[in-house]
Amino acid sequence: MPDFAPEEYAQRVARAQDGMARAGIDALLVTTEAELRYFTGFRTAFWQSPTRPWFLVLPARGQPIAIIPTIGVALMAATGLTDIRPFDSPAPDAPHIPILRQALAGVGTIGMPMGAESALRMPLAEFEALRASLRADWVDATPLIRGLRMIKSPAEQQALRDICTIGSRAFARAPELFHIGQPLEAAFRAFRIALLQDGAEEVPYLVGAADQGGYGDVISPPSGRPLAEGDILMLDTGASKLGYFCDFDRNWAIAHASPRAMDAHARLFAATEAALAALRPGMTAAALHAVMAQSLGHASAVGRLGHGLGMQLTEWPSLAPHDDTILRPGMVLTLEPSLEIAAGKMMVHEENVLLTEDGVELLSARTPPDLPVIG
Amino acid sequence: MPDFAPEEYAQRVARAQDGMARAGIDALLVTTEAELRYFTGFRTAFWQSPTRPWFLVLPARGQPIAIIPTIGVALMAATGLTDIRPFDSPAPDAPHIPILRQALAGVGTIGMPMGAESALRMPLAEFEALRASLRADWVDATPLIRGLRMIKSPAEQQALRDICTIGSRAFARAPELFHIGQPLEAAFRAFRIALLQDGAEEVPYLVGAADQGGYGDVISPPSGRPLAEGDILMLDTGASKLGYFCDFDRNWAIAHASPRAMDAHARLFAATEAALAALRPGMTAAALHAVMAQSLGHASAVGRLGHGLGMQLTEWPSLAPHDDTILRPGMVLTLEPSLEIAAGKMMVHEENVLLTEDGVELLSARTPPDLPVIG
Repeated sequence: MPDFAPEEYAQRVARAQDGMARAGIDALLVTTEAELRYFTGFRTAFWQSPTRPWFLVLPARGQPIAIIPTIGVALMAATGLTDIRPFDSPAPDAPHIPILRQALAGVGTIGMPMGAESALRMPLAEFEALRASLRADWVDATPLIRGLRMIKSPAEQQALRDICTIGSRAFARAPELFHIGQPLEAAFRAFRIALLQDGAEEVPYLVGAADQGGYGDVISPPSGRPLAEGDILMLDTGASKLGYFCDFDRNWAIAHASPRAMDAHARLFAATEAALAALRPGMTAAALHAVMAQSLGHASAVGRLGHGLGMQLTEWPSLAPHDDTILRPGMVLTLEPSLEIAAGKMMVHEENVLLTEDGVELLSARTPPDLPVIG
Repeated sequence: MPDFAPEEYAQRVARAQDGMARAGIDALLVTTEAELRYFTGFRTAFWQSPTRPWFLVLPARGQPIAIIPTIGVALMAATGLTDIRPFDSPAPDAPHIPILRQALAGVGTIGMPMGAESALRMPLAEFEALRASLRADWVDATPLIRGLRMIKSPAEQQALRDICTIGSRAFARAPELFHIGQPLEAAFRAFRIALLQDGAEEVPYLVGAADQGGYGDVISPPSGRPLAEGDILMLDTGASKLGYFCDFDRNWAIAHASPRAMDAHARLFAATEAALAALRPGMTAAALHAVMAQSLGHASAVGRLGHGLGMQLTEWPSLAPHDDTILRPGMVLTLEPSLEIAAGKMMVHEENVLLTEDGVELLSARTPPDLPVIG
């Protein structure tokens, strides 16, 4: 059984086909997990295995065609999709290519995601052989896919609300989970377990850091260094449920907070408040970035101050000066201001919000204005 | 700090450059997590974000060149790699392309993974623009990468031994973790937590199933159906530590085992025993498949009866009739026989082994010969 009602997927397909008609795309070909799941409800951890390619062809009219390894047929059939064309995999000589060629024969314009933030999850040599064997125009379907996936349906909004609530619940347990002397890797482990206990199905993403008065890097795996008095501990999690992600973080001072760290936290809190106050449908992603940048007194050092969120940890748009995407009701965004506290020491903060017709719904429980002290 | 000593990465680079010289490849370009990590030790959960592309160029001689988003510079520098050429990301107009073009200027033959089990983790349109801007021959480097990664170094072997020991420890706790009436999704959650408690750093892969006398599908997410007397419960995990995976499973009968289920388990056990007895350096993957297929009385329904294992859940080779890869000391393999018990009911079994000069080292604690009964 797929995660949402059949109508959800039927609407996604119908909207895609409307967009294809407008863009002059006669068939859409996708190879990636999020796209196959978006149109069918096909959800499995099996994507962890890079061995087998998976394909979905969405024709101009009618149902999607799944061209998938035999091992996936039972699960794909359980989604209700009826046109499943299986192939042996792994197998020599790429038996999926003739099946793809047949499914796409006579199609004038084939759309595929080829633009920013996309990838090709099939061997490049096989893709080129397929393309060379078809007399079709190939065009970038990234704008189409992005347009669909950026606006979350009520069912998706609820899935995101749920996982954000779970994340908030786990973060609220920080005082019992973390303590002076605990190696950072043990803190990570305790937090992963807390997320699962509180209802997360998976924890695909957990990063964080801890160091005196701030931290230097926010994408490293945890070290074995014990938490010490005066540390700022930050954890940033992408836990998931039904394949939808939360993505927010929390900072804590261990035992005591320096005035400089308290000030940094207050400035990050204020930048988020400014964004929450300004955010409304119709403004651009760049304008929202500007609100936060103005509050912080600088732009982002990592390219953006937030991003879309959904079936992937990060999605379009980017809250960045170059992104003129118009923000619309149904978008779920992260607000992610960051500050350099001292040379090589930073603090980051992140909340998750749903943009509504009226304004903003906080999906993550708002961090307290004052840097919490634990341990 | 990278996970292994600097010599480990230096040897990987040196072996790659030897292979490049033999294959006539003047520079290697990789875009994927496992390949960047293999050559540098760069390990981060940040790959969960599809936003930013990452590149490593390995020239014919000298050190690798990391062309990466600014957010990754500190962690990449911590690996000891010195030639880091950062770019703003996300940013308009793909600022990484000119940097790649400069790094690859004048190179005659560029190797990239393009073959089976590979993917292109960058936008296709950007790749094509890069290729069009260079006067180079582009060739498939899959055989080179596969040849390197299939043979695990002593450090990699130890990492794999460790995570398999952790997996075995968690599986051994099945009698306390699983019970009649427990929804399957709760069993999954309990097992994820057990893996973390027992030392796993992440659980990127967990699939399983439970049903009366066997199960129908082995890649679905768990349902809420409670475990019932007469069920066969199977869990198959890819937990990881230091970014290396275990991948093995266990079956249990809930409360009692039918003669048919006991017989199936015994036949899977016997097929694995046959493989363990036959496995030695110099035989092919196809020959090892044949040993198991003969013991089972049939070939695989899912394309293979095992595969390589390492930095990814599944790697080359495939234990399949078409794979004539010669098995060599240092390879880590899964032995994964499967059986249809009745129409739509199957049983699968999997162990992990290291191939040595002398024979085989079991990395997973061998399942008992008789189907264990719990609950």
